Amino acid sequence: MKFPSLEDIRNAHLRIQPFIHRTPILTSTAIDEMAGCRIFFKCENFQKVGAFKARGAANAVAKLTEEQKKNGVATHSSGNHAAALARAASVAGIKSYIVMPSNAPEIKKKAVKGYGGEIIECEPNLQARETTLRAVVDRTGATSIPPYDFYDVIEGQATCALEMWDEHIPFDVIMAPVGGGGLLAGTALTTKYISPSTLVIAGEPAGADDAFRSFHAKKLIPMEGPKTIADGLLTSLGKLNFAIIMQYVDDILTADDTEIIEAMRLVYERMKIVIEPSCAVPLAALLKNKERFRGKKVGIILSGGNVDLGKLPF
Amino acid sequence: MKFPSLEDIRNAHLRIQPFIHRTPILTSTAIDEMAGCRIFFKCENFQKVGAFKARGAANAVAKLTEEQKKNGVATHSSGNHAAALARAASVAGIKSYIVMPSNAPEIKKKAVKGYGGEIIECEPNLQARETTLRAVVDRTGATSIPPYDFYDVIEGQATCALEMWDEHIPFDVIMAPVGGGGLLAGTALTTKYISPSTLVIAGEPAGADDAFRSFHAKKLIPMEGPKTIADGLLTSLGKLNFAIIMQYVDDILTADDTEIIEAMRLVYERMKIVIEPSCAVPLAALLKNKERFRGKKVGIILSGGNVDLGKLPF
Repeated sequence: MKFPSLEDIRNAHLRIQPFIHRTPILTSTAIDEMAGCRIFFKCENFQKVGAFKARGAANAVAKLTEEQKKNGVATHSSGNHAAALARAASVAGIKSYIVMPSNAPEIKKKAVKGYGGEIIECEPNLQARETTLRAVVDRTGATSIPPYDFYDVIEGQATCALEMWDEHIPFDVIMAPVGGGGLLAGTALTTKYISPSTLVIAGEPAGADDAFRSFHAKKLIPMEGPKTIADGLLTSLGKLNFAIIMQYVDDILTADDTEIIEAMRLVYERMKIVIEPSCAVPLAALLKNKERFRGKKVGIILSGGNVDLGKLPF
Repeated sequence: MKFPSLEDIRNAHLRIQPFIHRTPILTSTAIDEMAGCRIFFKCENFQKVGAFKARGAANAVAKLTEEQKKNGVATHSSGNHAAALARAASVAGIKSYIVMPSNAPEIKKKAVKGYGGEIIECEPNLQARETTLRAVVDRTGATSIPPYDFYDVIEGQATCALEMWDEHIPFDVIMAPVGGGGLLAGTALTTKYISPSTLVIAGEPAGADDAFRSFHAKKLIPMEGPKTIADGLLTSLGKLNFAIIMQYVDDILTADDTEIIEAMRLVYERMKIVIEPSCAVPLAALLKNKERFRGKKVGIILSGGNVDLGKLPF
């Protein structure tokens, strides 16, 4: 199968524009001084449903046939894709069935319910999620919209970098976190189509580093027993995402939980914005590898802001 | 003495523009739906030093004579004015001496030190602050820059509302928190000069309601034993501020700490921005008095974002 083209991504952006925010890019002189480079933060924490996932879900739902719409959509997700799909379905006036691990943050479950999604809980592992989702699809006839391993979703996530390039900033590097790989694959496609010399570098939690290991082994290595505060990045890298990443991503850097929390605190203290831990991973990776970024213009996608305020790690 | 005029305020804005941010106005459809009105949040939490206080301090320092600059500036402040004056002095290349109560939040002390201010600690009450400040001024010859009861400072704080009116939003109401009254007085002056029919309404913590009591008694009643989570609003209303408030402010509404924390949480969850408790008081007061604001266009000044992240009340 062919990767989404730049034209596909531009069309996706036109398709979803009525349903998403064009999020701002913020800067912080204090963080720039610490980092030794210029950082442009693309604030997807201000996105609808509080995360970039609104983009992919909106695109996937907008591409459904009228026939498919009748039975609604279904997915499994630890959180942000869940809320995003429930909202995209609700806006389109169709049903959504969301399989969520029992340990998903309360705030994310609440969001799904708020958008009218029907939650089906399962054990917190990939196998249970997939089995439960299959049962739901069999029962309802809903169309499954995978959270990341799906071109329509990747195409949607790719529109985030498209907006960054629209700002005419000559990025030397663009960074995104990597979990399932939807945002990273989309970001890499857009960036390499528009500016092949710009480096695309991912940030991944050291405690959930299957993308890092897969990237270096040049074969997909499934995640086993991930353990990190970055709860949005616990999933294994998807197959389609991996193929795109191998072709277009330049490097994957890891950061441990202490470094992730430190970067997260910096963003709260210096930028006065609320982000979730997953979101802080690229900044943590950059601060750990300052020499590689010295003097450069770096775009960092702040992927989401859905954090349990009662459980902040400060 | 004459109140600062609109021309004075416009001149102050020109004077301080190189040293401050023009902060954005943000909106939230979710909060609008809850409140039953349209709210425009002026985000001074994104201001330099994380609070509107950067404005008044920058204006006061810019107006010093060359002779005054030689001996530096001094003040007493529980926090944000302290950092603001230390920064304004540092930018101007002069010394600053900051009298701070011993119970001031660690993050605010750290900020003052970071800007090169010299901290002199005192007991956490107004008398101790004033005595200590007088001793510092006697010793150093520094010019005292009061945190709020001072026209140069009020003029500076008034530039915040000036930027709001520059956005051409036909506000029915503008709200600000009230502690010493610098921001409220400045906001009232600007607003009534530009749009006399717009209501200016303050939010004050029920546990530190000297402005509320003074406003209704029509005489200045000093604060006694304030107790509220809104640590930026513990000070007594200033004399100059009271005179302006009596002439130009339409009402003062109070909210208790539970309501303040609830409003604060709403802003974190829905807007994904970091604010300090003092900042949430006007929104808390609005949500408590929804019927008075129904269908109106309300500007709310989010005054600052300097909160001890380790002590969030969630």
